[in-house]
Amino acid sequence: MADLSTDGANAHRKLEEQLRHIVKLLEKHRLIEAMVDRDRTSPRHDLIESLVHRQHLVELQLKLRSLHPADIAYILEALPLDDRLLVWRQIQDENGGEVLLEVSDAVRDSLIETLERPVLVGVLGHLDADDLMELTEAIPEEVLAEVLQTLPTRDRNWLQTTLAYSDDQVGRLMSQDVLTVRESQRIEQVLLLLRGREDLPPNTDCLFVVDARHQCKGVLPLQALLLNDPSRRVTELMLADPVVFHVYDLAQDAARAFERYDLVSAPVINERGKLIGRLTVDAVIDFIREESEEDALNMAGLARDEDLFAPIWDSARNRWLWLAINLGTAFVASRAIGLFEGTIAQIVALATLMPIVAGIGGNSGNQTTALVVRGLALGEITPENTWHLVLKELGVGLLNGVVWGATVGFFAWLLYWSVPLGSVMAVAMLLNLLLAALVGAAIPLTLHRLGRDPAMGSSVLLTFITDGMGFFIFLGLASVFLV
Amino acid sequence: MADLSTDGANAHRKLEEQLRHIVKLLEKHRLIEAMVDRDRTSPRHDLIESLVHRQHLVELQLKLRSLHPADIAYILEALPLDDRLLVWRQIQDENGGEVLLEVSDAVRDSLIETLERPVLVGVLGHLDADDLMELTEAIPEEVLAEVLQTLPTRDRNWLQTTLAYSDDQVGRLMSQDVLTVRESQRIEQVLLLLRGREDLPPNTDCLFVVDARHQCKGVLPLQALLLNDPSRRVTELMLADPVVFHVYDLAQDAARAFERYDLVSAPVINERGKLIGRLTVDAVIDFIREESEEDALNMAGLARDEDLFAPIWDSARNRWLWLAINLGTAFVASRAIGLFEGTIAQIVALATLMPIVAGIGGNSGNQTTALVVRGLALGEITPENTWHLVLKELGVGLLNGVVWGATVGFFAWLLYWSVPLGSVMAVAMLLNLLLAALVGAAIPLTLHRLGRDPAMGSSVLLTFITDGMGFFIFLGLASVFLV
Repeated sequence: MADLSTDGANAHRKLEEQLRHIVKLLEKHRLIEAMVDRDRTSPRHDLIESLVHRQHLVELQLKLRSLHPADIAYILEALPLDDRLLVWRQIQDENGGEVLLEVSDAVRDSLIETLERPVLVGVLGHLDADDLMELTEAIPEEVLAEVLQTLPTRDRNWLQTTLAYSDDQVGRLMSQDVLTVRESQRIEQVLLLLRGREDLPPNTDCLFVVDARHQCKGVLPLQALLLNDPSRRVTELMLADPVVFHVYDLAQDAARAFERYDLVSAPVINERGKLIGRLTVDAVIDFIREESEEDALNMAGLARDEDLFAPIWDSARNRWLWLAINLGTAFVASRAIGLFEGTIAQIVALATLMPIVAGIGGNSGNQTTALVVRGLALGEITPENTWHLVLKELGVGLLNGVVWGATVGFFAWLLYWSVPLGSVMAVAMLLNLLLAALVGAAIPLTLHRLGRDPAMGSSVLLTFITDGMGFFIFLGLASVFLV
Repeated sequence: MADLSTDGANAHRKLEEQLRHIVKLLEKHRLIEAMVDRDRTSPRHDLIESLVHRQHLVELQLKLRSLHPADIAYILEALPLDDRLLVWRQIQDENGGEVLLEVSDAVRDSLIETLERPVLVGVLGHLDADDLMELTEAIPEEVLAEVLQTLPTRDRNWLQTTLAYSDDQVGRLMSQDVLTVRESQRIEQVLLLLRGREDLPPNTDCLFVVDARHQCKGVLPLQALLLNDPSRRVTELMLADPVVFHVYDLAQDAARAFERYDLVSAPVINERGKLIGRLTVDAVIDFIREESEEDALNMAGLARDEDLFAPIWDSARNRWLWLAINLGTAFVASRAIGLFEGTIAQIVALATLMPIVAGIGGNSGNQTTALVVRGLALGEITPENTWHLVLKELGVGLLNGVVWGATVGFFAWLLYWSVPLGSVMAVAMLLNLLLAALVGAAIPLTLHRLGRDPAMGSSVLLTFITDGMGFFIFLGLASVFLV
């Protein structure tokens, strides 16, 4: 325990050290392999090879066995493919299932791919229904069917029921390990009941109170059991109006409620009000993190989660969808320039200045879009306040248009000593910034009203419009007033 | 409790209804105000006005008093400025402090601005040291000093100590409500101790075990108290190797550890290993959410958190920094075009095609940057695997360059029936995508090595290079091979 008081207390630094240690083991391993390879002519070659190999792998296995599955997952993510698979082979049997739970989707696929079907079935056999639930999307259907056969009937039914919910619903995140007590019980009865158990499910901060029809009547915090006289009744001590989630509730809303009310666990009920599961803060944190990472990757134009060390071909395919869309919109936007080639041939400075007008329109519109997307995610934008918001954004666009239009016009004049050119530039900028404000708000609002994710594709669509219209406005004004 | 079994269970929908109800109250309020205004000539005007006013505000206050501070915060965020301040005036005295804790930074500023100094001191007087801690950045220094005077010495010292940590450190997130037990105690003694308390601090899933020098020796889960024989000793039942955080640890690393190990609370120790605080999952969730929202807003070019209904002037200023930087880089990049105005005057099609080459370079580079930024945040990119990663990204860039270069070249040929123009376009695209891969990886890696946030400004810098070099490569090749 001494190291707790030193720098060793830093959990993350410890983890990085583990990674470095394993990388060193792998390097040694590879070095020896290379030496043995050179010595292939020697008669004892096979013997030596198998000996050093075995010795090395034992060291690696010992090291890995001492690590938490989440730490092994971190190490796997940070290793290039070859090393990753070497490490994975050492642990797949014992900890494989737990590690699969902890790695990211993309790396999970790369690990599962390497397993033969019977091995995979064996690995998954160590997991319970809640864990399997998290992996269903990554497992081939036949394998899942085979694993289901090995589960107790209760678990199998649970898994089949929860799989029916879509993955943005609470039903998909809940776990089945629910501890219930009855309203009529006394605290001492509850304590006796608990004393009979070996442990409580993780993240248990309260027990759920149900009536005879298994309707959720309240929650009984563990602290109520500890702080009160055992002769008191559950009804007296329970919180009668807890936050309860419906299986069909959006996971995103549930996550917000966990944040708002600082929950650790909460009951989940079905359409008939029956208590059927439990939502816990660890599942909520994972959900929040995954959502925000997915958003960040999507916004940058990646179709899905991508392994840092994915094969080049897989990586490229993951990026093609959005590159193709961007290419398409860029081509169409560039047609706006094509319309004015005659004007550009006469005043070639226009070609130099036009990307500035288009670009700043995109930047400014993106600012509006980001704010609106967040407001929609928080449920803060309502039909009542939408117009307020749009007018305010137009106001900001107008102010920015005047300020930056004047600035840009001034620089254009400085570069080309032409007042008309500077004026056209300034007016084009103002108009494009107003357009950007309007479109930057309208796109996510419209996507949201259509029931789509307002973040998804907003930025591409916006840039398309601010580019195309930016070119069109600037070159159009130029051909009217300058030619 | 009946409504728990119906749709009313949906916490978020409930909240939206509350918001709608309040908006309706506010509308009625404003309608009557307008009627009274029109009737200003009547002698009883003042009387009527004050009567309806009072009746209305009472209804509003009653409604607000029934809401959780987090729900009031949500409603304030969703209301335009006038309405927000009207609601705020109804609750500031009683719940003001709690509500300030729950609103976003930007809205918090808008609320605090409206309070006279003595009122603000009164509002803050209801909060404890941990809560005040969260608000310190929003409160004027003199006010903070005045509030500090009203705190008990212990709280005042706590606040002054924790304020010394920077806001990305664990010390800033921890709370002081630590429950400790001694190794030598028996469970029954601990139970007796707890029985004397009214409640436990929120998110208490374990007690911290300390020795005589207040060094943290382990944690004792609450469930150990419930499941075991009271005659057993704390040492037997405690977890002796818990995750412990150092006050100077990065909050980001601590958040990752909470996710990895599914923690609810954890001890925080100082440089001498003394237990001084507690980090809890609710603070961690808030931190994760704030970080991810801040990142998203920064990436979109907003300097800081922005109130959806901020005054136009405040909003505009919040956006100027990045617009100015973007404008500057766009101007510089456009000089690359300026160099080749002679070439463009001869082949005006180049002006039409050049934004495509530049744009797709930016898109593709951003994909690389997003992946690298995430890898760095997760600590998955190490000196050992950096080259692997860069080579892989170059491979993806090469593959994309060949595929999309050929596509774009083909379309350019289709548009202008010129094989040399199509070829120049294809080669320029290939070169710019290779450059984008290299720069897209290099920028966040370099920022990280310099100890800066790799997400901050990466995208602007990248677009600057892919734009400028995209124009330069394409027009340069064109002037060599086409003119």
